[in-house]
Amino acid sequence: MIGGGIGSFIGDVHRKAASIDGIIELVCGAFSSSSEKSKQSGKALLLPEERCYASYEEMIRKEKELPEDQRMDFVAIVTPNHMHFEPAKMALENGFHVVCDKPMTLTITEAEELEKIVHETGLLFALTHNYTGHPMVKQAKAMVKNGDLGGIRKIQVQYLQGWMATQVEKTDNKQASWRVDPKKSGVGGALGDIGTHAENLVEYITNLKIAELAADLGRFGEGRVLDDDGNILLRMENGAKGTMSFSQIAVGEENNLAIRVYGEKGSIEWHQENPNQLITRWIDQPKKVFTPNGNDLYPEAIKTSRIPAGHPEGYLEAFATIYKNFAIHLNNVLAGKNIEQPDYPSVSDGVRGVRFIHASVHSDKNNTAWTKL
Amino acid sequence: MIGGGIGSFIGDVHRKAASIDGIIELVCGAFSSSSEKSKQSGKALLLPEERCYASYEEMIRKEKELPEDQRMDFVAIVTPNHMHFEPAKMALENGFHVVCDKPMTLTITEAEELEKIVHETGLLFALTHNYTGHPMVKQAKAMVKNGDLGGIRKIQVQYLQGWMATQVEKTDNKQASWRVDPKKSGVGGALGDIGTHAENLVEYITNLKIAELAADLGRFGEGRVLDDDGNILLRMENGAKGTMSFSQIAVGEENNLAIRVYGEKGSIEWHQENPNQLITRWIDQPKKVFTPNGNDLYPEAIKTSRIPAGHPEGYLEAFATIYKNFAIHLNNVLAGKNIEQPDYPSVSDGVRGVRFIHASVHSDKNNTAWTKL
Amino acid sequence: MIGGGIGSFIGDVHRKAASIDGIIELVCGAFSSSSEKSKQSGKALLLPEERCYASYEEMIRKEKELPEDQRMDFVAIVTPNHMHFEPAKMALENGFHVVCDKPMTLTITEAEELEKIVHETGLLFALTHNYTGHPMVKQAKAMVKNGDLGGIRKIQVQYLQGWMATQVEKTDNKQASWRVDPKKSGVGGALGDIGTHAENLVEYITNLKIAELAADLGRFGEGRVLDDDGNILLRMENGAKGTMSFSQIAVGEENNLAIRVYGEKGSIEWHQENPNQLITRWIDQPKKVFTPNGNDLYPEAIKTSRIPAGHPEGYLEAFATIYKNFAIHLNNVLAGKNIEQPDYPSVSDGVRGVRFIHASVHSDKNNTAWTKL
Amino acid sequence: MIGGGIGSFIGDVHRKAASIDGIIELVCGAFSSSSEKSKQSGKALLLPEERCYASYEEMIRKEKELPEDQRMDFVAIVTPNHMHFEPAKMALENGFHVVCDKPMTLTITEAEELEKIVHETGLLFALTHNYTGHPMVKQAKAMVKNGDLGGIRKIQVQYLQGWMATQVEKTDNKQASWRVDPKKSGVGGALGDIGTHAENLVEYITNLKIAELAADLGRFGEGRVLDDDGNILLRMENGAKGTMSFSQIAVGEENNLAIRVYGEKGSIEWHQENPNQLITRWIDQPKKVFTPNGNDLYPEAIKTSRIPAGHPEGYLEAFATIYKNFAIHLNNVLAGKNIEQPDYPSVSDGVRGVRFIHASVHSDKNNTAWTKL
Repeated sequence: MIGGGIGSFIGDVHRKAASIDGIIELVCGAFSSSSEKSKQSGKALLLPEERCYASYEEMIRKEKELPEDQRMDFVAIVTPNHMHFEPAKMALENGFHVVCDKPMTLTITEAEELEKIVHETGLLFALTHNYTGHPMVKQAKAMVKNGDLGGIRKIQVQYLQGWMATQVEKTDNKQASWRVDPKKSGVGGALGDIGTHAENLVEYITNLKIAELAADLGRFGEGRVLDDDGNILLRMENGAKGTMSFSQIAVGEENNLAIRVYGEKGSIEWHQENPNQLITRWIDQPKKVFTPNGNDLYPEAIKTSRIPAGHPEGYLEAFATIYKNFAIHLNNVLAGKNIEQPDYPSVSDGVRGVRFIHASVHSDKNNTAWTKL
Repeated sequence: MIGGGIGSFIGDVHRKAASIDGIIELVCGAFSSSSEKSKQSGKALLLPEERCYASYEEMIRKEKELPEDQRMDFVAIVTPNHMHFEPAKMALENGFHVVCDKPMTLTITEAEELEKIVHETGLLFALTHNYTGHPMVKQAKAMVKNGDLGGIRKIQVQYLQGWMATQVEKTDNKQASWRVDPKKSGVGGALGDIGTHAENLVEYITNLKIAELAADLGRFGEGRVLDDDGNILLRMENGAKGTMSFSQIAVGEENNLAIRVYGEKGSIEWHQENPNQLITRWIDQPKKVFTPNGNDLYPEAIKTSRIPAGHPEGYLEAFATIYKNFAIHLNNVLAGKNIEQPDYPSVSDGVRGVRFIHASVHSDKNNTAWTKL
Repeated sequence: MIGGGIGSFIGDVHRKAASIDGIIELVCGAFSSSSEKSKQSGKALLLPEERCYASYEEMIRKEKELPEDQRMDFVAIVTPNHMHFEPAKMALENGFHVVCDKPMTLTITEAEELEKIVHETGLLFALTHNYTGHPMVKQAKAMVKNGDLGGIRKIQVQYLQGWMATQVEKTDNKQASWRVDPKKSGVGGALGDIGTHAENLVEYITNLKIAELAADLGRFGEGRVLDDDGNILLRMENGAKGTMSFSQIAVGEENNLAIRVYGEKGSIEWHQENPNQLITRWIDQPKKVFTPNGNDLYPEAIKTSRIPAGHPEGYLEAFATIYKNFAIHLNNVLAGKNIEQPDYPSVSDGVRGVRFIHASVHSDKNNTAWTKL
Repeated sequence: MIGGGIGSFIGDVHRKAASIDGIIELVCGAFSSSSEKSKQSGKALLLPEERCYASYEEMIRKEKELPEDQRMDFVAIVTPNHMHFEPAKMALENGFHVVCDKPMTLTITEAEELEKIVHETGLLFALTHNYTGHPMVKQAKAMVKNGDLGGIRKIQVQYLQGWMATQVEKTDNKQASWRVDPKKSGVGGALGDIGTHAENLVEYITNLKIAELAADLGRFGEGRVLDDDGNILLRMENGAKGTMSFSQIAVGEENNLAIRVYGEKGSIEWHQENPNQLITRWIDQPKKVFTPNGNDLYPEAIKTSRIPAGHPEGYLEAFATIYKNFAIHLNNVLAGKNIEQPDYPSVSDGVRGVRFIHASVHSDKNNTAWTKL
């Protein structure tokens, strides 16, 4: 693991998520740019001191020197945005598979370079767009894919948080400070942090690409140079239209990611904060609400559930599904088996996310001009 | 009453709404452009034959000839859009107060002319933006006005229906056929029919004007020349930003008008389909849900409820509140009393609505250019 | 109208409900036991002074003396419980049809006597169990009747209010004071006031009679001799079992009447506070949510709606449905037509309610012994 | 671990729950009464063969022979009900701490014997009443304890499932077959399986004991000798009254455990299927909805959350909280530290559960007679 030292939010989430299904074990880490802090973090995680490295470079180099059956199988990158590209590149170039947090890189060039390396090396790469790991998101995607909704016409997606409504970056809030810093966060603020999740969810569920967008970004927190709010019009490749709204200054909202997709025959609605139901509406039937392990589900949804109907799974379990599917893939590759790739977000999804950020910033700077993705 | 003959939807709603509080009585009507049909409709409504007129012109002329204490007190106009301006103008010019359905007129010029006449004559004019009649909408407006939410930053409003997802105008659906006809509906389709309700609700609750908008309209029904779907970015006069989405092709949606308004300290959320709760979120308190005649309400909300907490009021009651407040105003004016105007939508709200339609169409034609309202 | 003077809650509800559909007109009243107050109330309701009577006896007597086409068509009794029997009896004995509030009478003997008179005279009698007037309650009943749920096995019903959690009867709360007084309320407190609604709803929806019950009543308000809370086990005539819980001391609850009915194949769930949805669950399908004028409804539900899907109807409209169906019946009878009785609660439902109150009190006094209804 | 072989439901849940927080490691197991199956299960769990035992007796004996720093720290018992007592007793008598599934034992005598041994040995014992592990359940308990609701007056608890609505025990459903068998399940069917969870949740949240109960049990599945449904009246030690309803034949219900508790000043409502909100109602404030890591929580709730507000935790996480608190306790005890016992269900809670089962069966056999617990 690269990043995720003591006090980290997402590093701890990655570790819990990876452990739930009992098929992944943490074996080493470069948890901090401070050697001391990295060792302390590793110790707290019960790792042997010699595998708590002072830097990701050291980790990749030394692990590579270990016998094949002792070295780490893959690298998980859980650092702030600006520290994704270099570690991912070095890991791939040294033969390690990669799990990387989103957004994948700061620039489109970097993203495309990673994509190229992945394709050339054949190494596995997963991007943790964790919300695609929910059974009801799998069900939604399968319903669209199977034509249940008919041709898609309209999309509404939102990702609303309120925790940055005040100037939390001026307090000792470690999560806020790097997010408002263009050097660490890139050209997008909330755009990269949560907007990319919304973008990914739209393309994942609809099986359609966003063709172009028109963005109006907000910077409501005093002194912020990056967006903390945004409203975007979407046009999909098939002619469907939509809206995206995201915010980190939507007071009182916690983690309100939600999506509605309307087709010619039916529509779906899903809410991350209550993830275990998929609301569907129909041109000729009453509203139907699907639940994990409930009636009438597609296999893609069924196989994603861990426990019986009515036993809610949550954020960690969905996150774990990315790791589980990646690990199943990896185990098969390591065992020399050639299986169909299990469903997890890819390096190409990462490229889409970075393109989305840059297209949105470009549109916003050009008075909300329609901009191709 | 002008319009609202047998088989009419909104005419019947107006009549039921006007009767609930027992202070308004239907006395005459020009229910149809067919004299025969007007008389039949009037008969079904237990009106004397001599007060069922063949045209609105006849009605206004003949009622004016009646002694003052026998003639109608005001005119209610419940015709399709293109038949609002002329009857309203004639009624006002003949000294009758007016209740008119929305959108007020087809053109901005007409709207401003009505506004001018109302201001010059001092006659009363109510526009039936009925959704402002809900107690919880009154509460939302009062909360914003009293600064409970702090400065407004973000708005999301939607008005989603699905009943025109197929080509219902090709069936004998009377409601659909005039709505897709620019001669009767004007330059906006769903824009005028439901978009104006969304626009009015935004300005009503936030006490802010929409400064400019950027619109992307959809025409998904085959052969339609008017919009049946739209996505609009909003910028308010105070710098707040927002999205509006409306549709009549959102399959499975019934009458899903909903709004969220985020301020610096708190936010509100209201859904027309479950109108008896106002969800509020706060920077430093748990989510609070207000209910009609429940705890901690502003007087504006309390006085709008007719029955105790937990006894749901609905669409007709909210509609009735427009009529009730108009009637209270009118009774006071007729009694020579000078009271503060009760809260109901005015001719100026009507002008805003028509401007909104035209600005949206203009923006859409200009590739979603920002357009002042 | 008998009762319902100025300041009355339920009298005003009856009047609004009766007026919504425009087929019933208030023509006279004995609104109060004080002649003066009756006249004042009548005046406020725009009635001529000579038809505002000092007592119900006077009203019935004098109206009977009027020519047939001028006298009232039926009597609406909206007084406290102890003032239902005598007026209803006298009205029936003088040839007037009756609409009566619930519970019908204080004693089973009285209830059976009214039933006998109604059956002997052939006069119409409606009891205002208003909650049966909701379209989704009609749908629930029709689903059970058509066997959609299979044989009924389990019932949960509750009616929870909190407004009597403190000793409001010691304040000037007119609604509370008679409800805690056995002379006016009868042997049941909350039992009669709201428990009977729950009992009626169970039998209405399931088309089954309660065979026996075991009750544990509570008197939580200091000094109260009548129940203000109750928990009852139910056994239905077909072997189904259930629970009923009602309360007027359930702090924070407004008017939370809700029911769940489980059959062998499916189940229904309905909530009065959000009356425009019927939640259904199935052994082999996802949860389905029906809405008024939505898809896949039975005719009984469809014909009860006044406005399109998504336009919520509420408490007053459901109440109005009792009046509307009664008036349709009455109009047909007056016109000499022999039609099937429209669906509204009957005098026999009233007998069931009074039996329910007495059985519950008996069971409670006998240490929760199973008691036949 | 004792029990929990391949195909087990609850064994897998225990393992996932124990692993989430990274402080518990599975080291050995007697996963099945078949030595072969036990070894296969252990192998799938990556355990060394020599620590996959053929029986719990062998496991306890052999582990005890290992050096103290190599042997297991505690035993987790995840077998059907009839296999709890003997393994727990033997483990305790051999000095091992115990985590045991519920209901604790088949008879009250057994339960009291375990309680006695625990008290005498000072060994730790946790019963996996997992629903007490939710942050919002902790918040509810803390609110009652701190007097926020005032004195408790009324309780409604339900635990509804529908998966045994048909005769699933006649299929190869392993979960169903032992549950309908009195030899394995004990005198209670649904009573023991889910009723005990409801009973425990009531006493946990209210901090009150059930004084007596009156039960009416149902056996709706053809040929069942044990209850598959039950309705119970409750009287609490402080005079509060309540209802409990549980069922495994409530068609369409998945795992609908829910509770409402009404005090003199406020009330709480919690639903297991949507566990991340606690609805509260108040005598003088609007409804307030608490969320994990949201505003205004008690420390007991805050410290139970693993991730930020709006990131839902679910069934596994709540289950994990039992293990986490038990492990924290155990680590401190092993380290010789004397800390206050963290909050997890105890052997005494186990005794209450077994008493509840037997009291309910006794009451049901005696025509719903009030029976002390």
